[in-house]
Amino acid sequence: MVSLREDERLDYLLAEDMKIIQSKTVFAFSLDAVLLAKFAYVPIQKGEIIDLCTGNGIVPLLLSTRSKASITGVEIQERLFDMAKRSVAHNQLEQQIELIHGDLNDMPKRYGNHKVDVITCNPPYFKTPSKDEINENEYLAIARHEIHCTLEDVIRVSSTLLKQGGKLAMVHRPGRLLEIVEMMKKYRIEPKRIQFVYPKQGKEANTILVEGMKDGKPDLKILPPLFVYGEDQEYTKEIRTILYGEA
Amino acid sequence: MVSLREDERLDYLLAEDMKIIQSKTVFAFSLDAVLLAKFAYVPIQKGEIIDLCTGNGIVPLLLSTRSKASITGVEIQERLFDMAKRSVAHNQLEQQIELIHGDLNDMPKRYGNHKVDVITCNPPYFKTPSKDEINENEYLAIARHEIHCTLEDVIRVSSTLLKQGGKLAMVHRPGRLLEIVEMMKKYRIEPKRIQFVYPKQGKEANTILVEGMKDGKPDLKILPPLFVYGEDQEYTKEIRTILYGEA
Repeated sequence: MVSLREDERLDYLLAEDMKIIQSKTVFAFSLDAVLLAKFAYVPIQKGEIIDLCTGNGIVPLLLSTRSKASITGVEIQERLFDMAKRSVAHNQLEQQIELIHGDLNDMPKRYGNHKVDVITCNPPYFKTPSKDEINENEYLAIARHEIHCTLEDVIRVSSTLLKQGGKLAMVHRPGRLLEIVEMMKKYRIEPKRIQFVYPKQGKEANTILVEGMKDGKPDLKILPPLFVYGEDQEYTKEIRTILYGEA
Repeated sequence: MVSLREDERLDYLLAEDMKIIQSKTVFAFSLDAVLLAKFAYVPIQKGEIIDLCTGNGIVPLLLSTRSKASITGVEIQERLFDMAKRSVAHNQLEQQIELIHGDLNDMPKRYGNHKVDVITCNPPYFKTPSKDEINENEYLAIARHEIHCTLEDVIRVSSTLLKQGGKLAMVHRPGRLLEIVEMMKKYRIEPKRIQFVYPKQGKEANTILVEGMKDGKPDLKILPPLFVYGEDQEYTKEIRTILYGEA
């Protein structure tokens, strides 16, 4: 049994034998989070992973199916943290997934000299607009706009938390790509793998997946492109495989 | 009539009603040059274009079919400059295409305050290796390795030669992408359009096309990906269209 609040629903994660608590008015995960969880390098048998801006815990839940590493999700919004916690409990993953209700900027102090193997992050995509432009729904505004953390916060904090050779994987928008690689370089995270996601053939990319290595050597790979929709306006086979586990 | 040296041949540029002098032992253009000539923005009716590292003049020849702008090719190797000159004459394009035998690093002095609209460049892709690793064929070594010009030379010189709002389009390898965007930023050329070229579906990109604008505003677009070969190991339709003009 799981206790749901009024505006919440319990969704299947179709590719996995798992469920997750979502809410349209508070937070529902996007395809981007699923792509990030698939894209990120993870140690299979052991190690430590932190997911920053974890929201309802979608990325830790998905990563737990690929790795036995211990996974920590950090979320600043109490309501989302609470959803994530209940989803983890519902899936009986408390042994593997820990959740921290807090500001990612406080993690370096909290972790001290303890360093981790992998950091994932699906951060807010947009710079904070003026007050009258911003989403009136505070939950959604915080998830989408750089109100509580900027791109630089995410990368600076990640660099501090990562071991030498540890990896940071992020999903973001193409318009921020140059900033991301610039910031990564600034904080000694060398971009190593980039994958572009295109809504369909013949369209510009609308999503990017970027992985960098702490103190890595320059050697950038551009992975095969991902297309979300086919000519038939349906998800492509590769996206269906990621979402639903169809072969 | 065209006079060919012993090791030269006269090749058709199949998509265009044109011929070009090539030589296996000295210089033959690659698909990359053709992709660059297709990718680059060009003014249609008038203006001025410079092609740096022009080799046998492939890029100016192709650009002349898309633009009435005056085009100047700069080539440091006398032998290649001479091939380019004869190809331009054979195609009766002397009114539109001028060739300069010289070092691109001398162009800012030569042009002085005169600024141009567009610069294209298919530069040497590789850093200069040690003497015993380098190609013994000096022509090919100079075309492939940064012996006479580095990436920074190309971008610094381009920035000096371009008008405000003028564009630099380059073709290069993905491993140099981060350097390219970093150098462009350093010399006030804002990367605006990037296109990745993949040998086929499911493979990493092996070529990149990058266009930046002098003093442009940040707003990067990732164009639809290009695939060179299909599942049948033949050129894809889009590449055949670019190469042979097939519809």
